[in-house]
Amino acid sequence: MLGYAFMGHAYSRALQALRDLDVPFVPELVSISGRNAEALERARELWGWAEVVTDWREQVADERVQLFVNGGPNAVHAEPTIAAARAAKHVICEKPLGRTAAESHEIWQETARTGVQHLCGFNYRFVPAIRLARELLEAGELGEVVHFRLRYLQGWSWDADPGAWRFDPDQAGTGVLGDIGSHAIDLARYLVGEIANVSAGVRTIVPGRRVDDHFVAAVEFENGVLGTLEGSQLARGRANSNAFEINCANGSLAFDMERLNELEVADKQGFKRLLVTEPGHPFMRFWWPHGHIIGWGETFVHEVAHVLEAIAGEHPVAPHGATFEDGYRCSEVIEAILRSAREGRREPVAFG
Amino acid sequence: MLGYAFMGHAYSRALQALRDLDVPFVPELVSISGRNAEALERARELWGWAEVVTDWREQVADERVQLFVNGGPNAVHAEPTIAAARAAKHVICEKPLGRTAAESHEIWQETARTGVQHLCGFNYRFVPAIRLARELLEAGELGEVVHFRLRYLQGWSWDADPGAWRFDPDQAGTGVLGDIGSHAIDLARYLVGEIANVSAGVRTIVPGRRVDDHFVAAVEFENGVLGTLEGSQLARGRANSNAFEINCANGSLAFDMERLNELEVADKQGFKRLLVTEPGHPFMRFWWPHGHIIGWGETFVHEVAHVLEAIAGEHPVAPHGATFEDGYRCSEVIEAILRSAREGRREPVAFG
Amino acid sequence: MLGYAFMGHAYSRALQALRDLDVPFVPELVSISGRNAEALERARELWGWAEVVTDWREQVADERVQLFVNGGPNAVHAEPTIAAARAAKHVICEKPLGRTAAESHEIWQETARTGVQHLCGFNYRFVPAIRLARELLEAGELGEVVHFRLRYLQGWSWDADPGAWRFDPDQAGTGVLGDIGSHAIDLARYLVGEIANVSAGVRTIVPGRRVDDHFVAAVEFENGVLGTLEGSQLARGRANSNAFEINCANGSLAFDMERLNELEVADKQGFKRLLVTEPGHPFMRFWWPHGHIIGWGETFVHEVAHVLEAIAGEHPVAPHGATFEDGYRCSEVIEAILRSAREGRREPVAFG
Amino acid sequence: MLGYAFMGHAYSRALQALRDLDVPFVPELVSISGRNAEALERARELWGWAEVVTDWREQVADERVQLFVNGGPNAVHAEPTIAAARAAKHVICEKPLGRTAAESHEIWQETARTGVQHLCGFNYRFVPAIRLARELLEAGELGEVVHFRLRYLQGWSWDADPGAWRFDPDQAGTGVLGDIGSHAIDLARYLVGEIANVSAGVRTIVPGRRVDDHFVAAVEFENGVLGTLEGSQLARGRANSNAFEINCANGSLAFDMERLNELEVADKQGFKRLLVTEPGHPFMRFWWPHGHIIGWGETFVHEVAHVLEAIAGEHPVAPHGATFEDGYRCSEVIEAILRSAREGRREPVAFG
Repeated sequence: MLGYAFMGHAYSRALQALRDLDVPFVPELVSISGRNAEALERARELWGWAEVVTDWREQVADERVQLFVNGGPNAVHAEPTIAAARAAKHVICEKPLGRTAAESHEIWQETARTGVQHLCGFNYRFVPAIRLARELLEAGELGEVVHFRLRYLQGWSWDADPGAWRFDPDQAGTGVLGDIGSHAIDLARYLVGEIANVSAGVRTIVPGRRVDDHFVAAVEFENGVLGTLEGSQLARGRANSNAFEINCANGSLAFDMERLNELEVADKQGFKRLLVTEPGHPFMRFWWPHGHIIGWGETFVHEVAHVLEAIAGEHPVAPHGATFEDGYRCSEVIEAILRSAREGRREPVAFG
Repeated sequence: MLGYAFMGHAYSRALQALRDLDVPFVPELVSISGRNAEALERARELWGWAEVVTDWREQVADERVQLFVNGGPNAVHAEPTIAAARAAKHVICEKPLGRTAAESHEIWQETARTGVQHLCGFNYRFVPAIRLARELLEAGELGEVVHFRLRYLQGWSWDADPGAWRFDPDQAGTGVLGDIGSHAIDLARYLVGEIANVSAGVRTIVPGRRVDDHFVAAVEFENGVLGTLEGSQLARGRANSNAFEINCANGSLAFDMERLNELEVADKQGFKRLLVTEPGHPFMRFWWPHGHIIGWGETFVHEVAHVLEAIAGEHPVAPHGATFEDGYRCSEVIEAILRSAREGRREPVAFG
Repeated sequence: MLGYAFMGHAYSRALQALRDLDVPFVPELVSISGRNAEALERARELWGWAEVVTDWREQVADERVQLFVNGGPNAVHAEPTIAAARAAKHVICEKPLGRTAAESHEIWQETARTGVQHLCGFNYRFVPAIRLARELLEAGELGEVVHFRLRYLQGWSWDADPGAWRFDPDQAGTGVLGDIGSHAIDLARYLVGEIANVSAGVRTIVPGRRVDDHFVAAVEFENGVLGTLEGSQLARGRANSNAFEINCANGSLAFDMERLNELEVADKQGFKRLLVTEPGHPFMRFWWPHGHIIGWGETFVHEVAHVLEAIAGEHPVAPHGATFEDGYRCSEVIEAILRSAREGRREPVAFG
Repeated sequence: MLGYAFMGHAYSRALQALRDLDVPFVPELVSISGRNAEALERARELWGWAEVVTDWREQVADERVQLFVNGGPNAVHAEPTIAAARAAKHVICEKPLGRTAAESHEIWQETARTGVQHLCGFNYRFVPAIRLARELLEAGELGEVVHFRLRYLQGWSWDADPGAWRFDPDQAGTGVLGDIGSHAIDLARYLVGEIANVSAGVRTIVPGRRVDDHFVAAVEFENGVLGTLEGSQLARGRANSNAFEINCANGSLAFDMERLNELEVADKQGFKRLLVTEPGHPFMRFWWPHGHIIGWGETFVHEVAHVLEAIAGEHPVAPHGATFEDGYRCSEVIEAILRSAREGRREPVAFG
């Protein structure tokens, strides 16, 4: 594990939880790395890592390490991840994959050529309700998708520490686009298909900020569907409202991450609220009887379980997990949004 | 009154209701006009009109008529409305004002020069919760608007009669854009300000249809705010969901027309649901004690009351009512959306 | 019409509206009566009554009057209603029918023997979603009712004028029990069946108040179903939340008067929100296309239309309208609740 | 740990999670016991227990065991729990504490005299929103409680295996009353205060069932507040809807376990939805940034952490945890409900 902050916590807890669940491998928590030795030591103690290392290169060189989880800031995604893959370790890298499409492309290409399993940390694909949404769309009863809209709103950014790495373009690449816009784009691609072009606007609103903190986009998918995407961390009253609605020829689906156990499914008459905690629902084999909801943290359990199963040959990472190719493609959509906003025209997404 | 269908019903009922409410004039229902004599006679009898005429020119020539309400199809907006205004009658004309921006411009200009009061039938400005939203924005406590999003979704159009005038480009001008997109645009302008440019996509989805039935747009307001607009009548499970959210520096507002008595108002902590039926809330002087909700039809009562008050000199139609200038400006936004969709670029809204 | 306050307004508006709807008779608004001549004159002018009389006996003697609507305070329900019925006028009397079960019994018996049509103003039976709920229960697909719960909550009573007639036991009979508890009981009876016994508590909470302002009751229906009833006008944040849920062997129904256009219908999987505004839904022949909601006031339109149809012989008042017998039976349940609260035991409802 | 089914899973996972959180002791998972050796072995392997024992007496005799968690069926609550306490082990026992009030009283008394820490597994006290509700009530701004209502509804019981121990009176004591009614009662006591008396009805609905599957109760608290309680596992469309509303003089609180991260807080104007995931909210020091919700399973983490802190002397178990005294008092309320239902009168809760 590289990283000892928010993502370090989420992955550590998931790895611990997987020690007690029915997956092909029992994770051993070998070592956690980062730059701040004191914080690392505390993370090690709290989250049960055997060792602390202050240079990820030690982890890459460590033969005991078979899965390298990169939960560090965006600026340290590329080099450690590629190095780990070259050392034949399977890799999970947090989103956004790289700070630019070029960097993402390099991570993908360099990793893919090693033959290891790779997953980009779009954990929302592992929300039971979202997996169920995809299954319902594939099952065909809802008919063809005709509209898609998603807006991901949080409200914390008005009062954020301006010195955080997320607001430093060198560290983060982009602002809201990379942080939560990437999730929005990945879900659009997972649920509807590849994005062909975007017509977008991007804003920096908080004075002095050097990265984007609002984007809107009208998008066209390759299958012809039109949709809207939006992201902001300046939406008062919204905490983590990654909400989408998909309208199909025969029905509709609606979802909000603040109520991640619920999926609303419409027919002609109206929307029915499903609690996606029934025994047969996705990932519920790990958890509780119907009605006993799971939390956001469990999405990482599902995600890592998916990688372990892929390593064991039970299924490929794609399509239900996002590979580094998905991470790269997401980056290209972000760049198309930035180009469209700058140029004032509909921009095709250009895959390298 | 011109028109005896949906809008004829809505206005007739509102005029009747206003006979019993505290407004400056007591409406007398002089005559109702249209082409189908049989349907007209039934409308006259049901809705209490004194006379039926099959040529609106008779109404224009009728000295008893002081207010001419044009609720007919879009193709008969221009000529009767202008003629009535020239005959010194105050005029209400349903939205969209004209089938094209040019036609709307003509209606506005020809009417404005006569000096009569004119209102374009954007009745949603007269929803108490929407008026309250505007008042809260103006009061300033919420701070500057930073984001706006609105999508107007209905679901009836999959199964609609393909021969209806709404699907005939000559009769209707546009499809979903003129019908409900115009409401979306008017609310955006009423609540946030003038739209500077749009980046849009437009689709016809139902096979054989000759007008648009889906649009998406990323918009930029003159004050720099970015937003999204969308309209469709192919959204299964949605009946009349004209829903918007406005995020400001200090708080947010959310609304859905399917629950038109409710306004959600957020501070940093979360959204509070207000039932906009308190005695001091807009338009509630006409109605019931708190908690006893009003219906969609009541918006027409408020709208016509507003016109009667304007005629009596109590206030101008603008800004709380939409004038024909607003009707025209809405048409220009629609045309900018169509141009942007066609040309694939961000299109400025060009006011004549 | 007797009464010029809240109910006077509601009925006047409904009668006016019915002049323009497809019902067997066109109402003529003959006269409005009450004690305060000034307020009456204002009511007459506003709501379109031809005449004002300060003694209801003139209305009873007036041969033009064919339907007598008693919307006055509870203390003037009995005498004028009975007199009107004896004068062969059809009668609508507001709820609660009498201040005591004995008074209600007398009103019912004296009216019934005259042979006129009589309806007790339980207008919530005329909410489309509630009528639909009854129809769904009767259709049988939901299976047998197994549970029922209803609580009717408003919040205005903390700050109410202590001199209002509603807080005077002589004028009102009871407090919250008669005012909104009666609605709760009537809906329980309409939807599930006769109440056999009650186990209840009653409280007066506001200092100095002389009537009840909170009741709770565990009830048993004659069909064996157990349920709960509660009423309060001291529930902060609730404006008019008359909310019930019915669980059946195969599904459930849920409703809240603050969203009176909505009915939630559950199967095993979850609740589907129906907007009860489709063309085929109850009472929708009077109104708008799907999704265009109606208000609380419209329930009086439906109620009076129902009486007019009963007068025309199209159907009896019962079971979809509440007769005076229903008004009486409701009073007996109220008295059983009061007895049970006082005696501390399960009390059978004793019908005279 | 005694028990390897639902509760075994919940506690095992919580204990594992606590190894990685900031609590006074690091749990070592010594042994898991039960009757079915095969299921136990699977539980041991999955959930990380060091050993399996088929007789809980071995655990009681095991000096390494310092905390004994009894998650077995109700019939094996008393003997092992008392034995463990006598062996100076701290004890957690699942609810209901005993099958009868007498049994509960014995467990409480015998445990209390040993001086160990004891907690009855009312895990819902450890839902952040419920702790916050209690804190808000104690802070006083909401004013005195005036009404309380809670109904706990699930829907699984129509299709349940009739041979399950929950439906065997000898094993379970009661049906819905002990299983989820006990949670309802405990929350009522935690949030409002001691229950003085109850007026109740109880039903067995599913043919052939030998325990209760529905109860309703009007309750009076010692402070004079009236309320309603209800429980059923036959409510179609409800999965785990433990929902309450508390009305106070100045505001109200509303909660539903199906959305356990949310608390609705009302003032005079309406209800505000809080997402109880802010850094300062109860128990959130263990988890994620605001808006990233937690699951039902996390309540056990909080509960066991609370016990570990109590063992460390940081605070007593009460009042935020339920002691065995609370478990006993809950049993007395259950028996009062049964007596009231049988006798048809208001029954005082008789504490031994």
